[in-house]
Amino acid sequence: MQKKAVRKLGDSQASSELKRTALKEMQVKQERKQEIETIGITVKKEDDFSEWYTQVVVKSGLADYSAVSGCMVIRPLGYAIWDKIKTVCEQRLKKMGAQSSYFPLLIPESLLKKEAEHVQGFTPEVAWVTHGGNTKLNEKLAVRPTSEAIMYDSYSKWIRSWRDLPLKLMQWNNVLRWEFEHPVLLLRTREFLWVEGHTAFATKQEAEQEMKEVMALWKEVCENYLALYGISGTKTEKQKFAGAERTETIEYYLPNGKMLQGPDAHYDGQKFAKAYSISFLDKDGSTKNVFQNTWAITTRMIGALVAVHSDNKGLVLPPNLAPNKLVIVPILFEDSKKEVLAECKKIAAELKEFAPILDDREGYTPGWKFNEWELKGIPVRIEFGPRDLKAKNAVVARRDTGEKKTVAIKDISKAVAEMLNKMQMDLLKKSKKLAEDNIIEAKTLNELVKAVNEKKAVLATICANPECEDWIKDKTGGAGTRNIPFGSKKPSGKCVHCGKPAVVTALFAKSY
Amino acid sequence: MQKKAVRKLGDSQASSELKRTALKEMQVKQERKQEIETIGITVKKEDDFSEWYTQVVVKSGLADYSAVSGCMVIRPLGYAIWDKIKTVCEQRLKKMGAQSSYFPLLIPESLLKKEAEHVQGFTPEVAWVTHGGNTKLNEKLAVRPTSEAIMYDSYSKWIRSWRDLPLKLMQWNNVLRWEFEHPVLLLRTREFLWVEGHTAFATKQEAEQEMKEVMALWKEVCENYLALYGISGTKTEKQKFAGAERTETIEYYLPNGKMLQGPDAHYDGQKFAKAYSISFLDKDGSTKNVFQNTWAITTRMIGALVAVHSDNKGLVLPPNLAPNKLVIVPILFEDSKKEVLAECKKIAAELKEFAPILDDREGYTPGWKFNEWELKGIPVRIEFGPRDLKAKNAVVARRDTGEKKTVAIKDISKAVAEMLNKMQMDLLKKSKKLAEDNIIEAKTLNELVKAVNEKKAVLATICANPECEDWIKDKTGGAGTRNIPFGSKKPSGKCVHCGKPAVVTALFAKSY
Repeated sequence: MQKKAVRKLGDSQASSELKRTALKEMQVKQERKQEIETIGITVKKEDDFSEWYTQVVVKSGLADYSAVSGCMVIRPLGYAIWDKIKTVCEQRLKKMGAQSSYFPLLIPESLLKKEAEHVQGFTPEVAWVTHGGNTKLNEKLAVRPTSEAIMYDSYSKWIRSWRDLPLKLMQWNNVLRWEFEHPVLLLRTREFLWVEGHTAFATKQEAEQEMKEVMALWKEVCENYLALYGISGTKTEKQKFAGAERTETIEYYLPNGKMLQGPDAHYDGQKFAKAYSISFLDKDGSTKNVFQNTWAITTRMIGALVAVHSDNKGLVLPPNLAPNKLVIVPILFEDSKKEVLAECKKIAAELKEFAPILDDREGYTPGWKFNEWELKGIPVRIEFGPRDLKAKNAVVARRDTGEKKTVAIKDISKAVAEMLNKMQMDLLKKSKKLAEDNIIEAKTLNELVKAVNEKKAVLATICANPECEDWIKDKTGGAGTRNIPFGSKKPSGKCVHCGKPAVVTALFAKSY
Repeated sequence: MQKKAVRKLGDSQASSELKRTALKEMQVKQERKQEIETIGITVKKEDDFSEWYTQVVVKSGLADYSAVSGCMVIRPLGYAIWDKIKTVCEQRLKKMGAQSSYFPLLIPESLLKKEAEHVQGFTPEVAWVTHGGNTKLNEKLAVRPTSEAIMYDSYSKWIRSWRDLPLKLMQWNNVLRWEFEHPVLLLRTREFLWVEGHTAFATKQEAEQEMKEVMALWKEVCENYLALYGISGTKTEKQKFAGAERTETIEYYLPNGKMLQGPDAHYDGQKFAKAYSISFLDKDGSTKNVFQNTWAITTRMIGALVAVHSDNKGLVLPPNLAPNKLVIVPILFEDSKKEVLAECKKIAAELKEFAPILDDREGYTPGWKFNEWELKGIPVRIEFGPRDLKAKNAVVARRDTGEKKTVAIKDISKAVAEMLNKMQMDLLKKSKKLAEDNIIEAKTLNELVKAVNEKKAVLATICANPECEDWIKDKTGGAGTRNIPFGSKKPSGKCVHCGKPAVVTALFAKSY
């Protein structure tokens, strides 16, 4: 289905590449007409979620397909959003003592193999470099799927004494996982961008303290910037990160009934430290292995944002992430054009803090411009014409609700700030409601199966046997455990599958 | 020679990994002693430039070797410097209309092959991905050595009309060139970080205008931030970028007599546009190919910075790039410790804008701390002890010259700002003097050979025949043309090699 959107782009490109003909002028007009017709989203979110999603991502200019199967281009709008997420997180992580650095892209196979569970988890999806120029390499090199192996090799060299701890490094980089499943722009691509944090501590206590701080940071950023409400919890043994002792994640319910794993943090204990010989001489003179964490947030979150908040007009961007929070569309008539444009420029100057776009392009109707900026997700639109000039008013419209207000020009800065603020909060509320409406409890396996069929995520009690997770996944057509939500009490009931005493309440859903 | 520095690190690490013994306490003391002894640079810049350079880079914590041959780790200090260069350039490039984006790491072989000169230039040094997991790929994929091929494939899809131009995208990313030469940290590594800008215009004029602006920007940033003076000019036909019509670079003279190619800009004309079918429907209704530029600045520049400015005590960082511009070292005695530390904290608070480090570590002498911060290149040091407390003074010392001043505490902010400012300007002057003292003119081939042997870079007149460049390179033991400096007039003399009428004055030097 994703091909449809791409095909359309291809067709209009082909038409533009027709060589000079006697019909040049007509061609220009025709191209404009076609552009206007195909610019909008042509399917409804509720009718065909996948096609709708792809159209929103491609047509809004967030991301696009590339010549490499499963890999995407992140276009300027998508990249600006990622850059904002990066800036916000990096600043907070630096306050926690983490420092940015850069490690090699390529990892020798022998190094990757040092931690047994880790290599088992990643080998099937590694892209291998085997040749440099025309020369076959002595040892094949993995394009990093994650950087534990290459970083911990350096850690074992750098960390010698308690004075070298804690060591907290992060990398904002690209990683590659050669999964052969159906790719989805932003949500499921072979290459993506992320931050990977790798920290080493003298004590378990410090590592556990950082786990709490990082999970709180992810939650805060996702709620207050991405306006996404998720379920924080612990992965089951079966689902934890390859090599970790414990994995914590935030899981997001998407409108298609699937859940997406968001940012995470892994408590690695001393597992990697032992495999990669990361030890230090402690104050008491004894040699010890360090305790480690790893944590990450990725560009997939931009996909979650699109899936949850966008609508049939296109992208909806939370104001705190939008590179341009505002567009000003002048309503132009010949006799008042000059005055209206002049006033629009004044308004733009006054609202500079919102990085306004003044759309003074000629040859497009205001209605066409409204559609385009709605497609691109600009949070607030100001409409301004000759009548507004006379009345010293402007019309301010909100992207998500369509709400319109007439405000006095002198109050416009305050009105825009309030509208953006309200929109940001409302989007989070909407996301929370979506999750609350669609995460339900099931007492029996039948209830669980029924709920999954109705595109719900389901809380159910299970025993500690990983086979029961497999059985449930099989019987629900693919709903595995997402996590064990934080704060859920030890259940008194039975495992919905085997009937043995339940150990945990887990969240089940199909995964994106 | 570079192995020496690495071996030392390895040895002290090995000693720290000795298991518990009855001599634990002694071991701790011994380790400290060893750390103090090996922390400094053990060779002189003038005696063994290569070993000195590597020791400065590794011991200051800028970068380190990794488990992958020819690839480096950029440690937090090195990364912070790169981040500053990035921030400064990105801001200016955005003002020029360039936008950040991200394209796939991997490039299908067929795509890379579309522009003949380009593929010829890069194929010998491409790292090839041939397998995904255990499956052999149908087509091998290049790890990007540069992104023309993958970006222009998208450009050909996106650009349809004059309204889509100019398109100015940049990527701050990693690239890989599998060169099999001797690696040098930062200066010559298989993987490095850079920005690659790729712009497309409707007219040649606009492209040429951007070339000027970008070259001016590189010059400005390198002079005012990196304090590096270079020679801007045009590459000869022989030395230009694979696929470009014209290459412009800034070349830097290093104290070992070699020159390093710094940032560059390539005018591609319509060569790539034709190979990758990037055309647009112009206002007049005709279909045209776009005109393109590409430009880049890389992490190699950090290596140039080290080579030019650092000294036998270690790193010297230009204040405008130093993440911490200031360190405060308290001189502590038991009876006045509390008061001295309290005043140091006040001073640190007042000088917050310089991101000061207050080095209040116990168990290290002030002298040891001076050495460590000199090694790490902190531009200004404040020494503060009980006598200063009494006199309401502080001693302020400058990293590059060693100059010390006693200043009243009330004037300290102004004194530090002035010292930093002066240091920044003096470093650029020093760099300019280094270049001017070592770039000389030669009238004959003999003079040229002699000058190269004396580690000079040489200006000489040559004809247009590329074979003369080859002959001169051969006869000088490796000095090729670096560039044809901007503003050099058409020479009246003869080619120093063949004696035919000279066409240009070119700069010759061995290259790093």
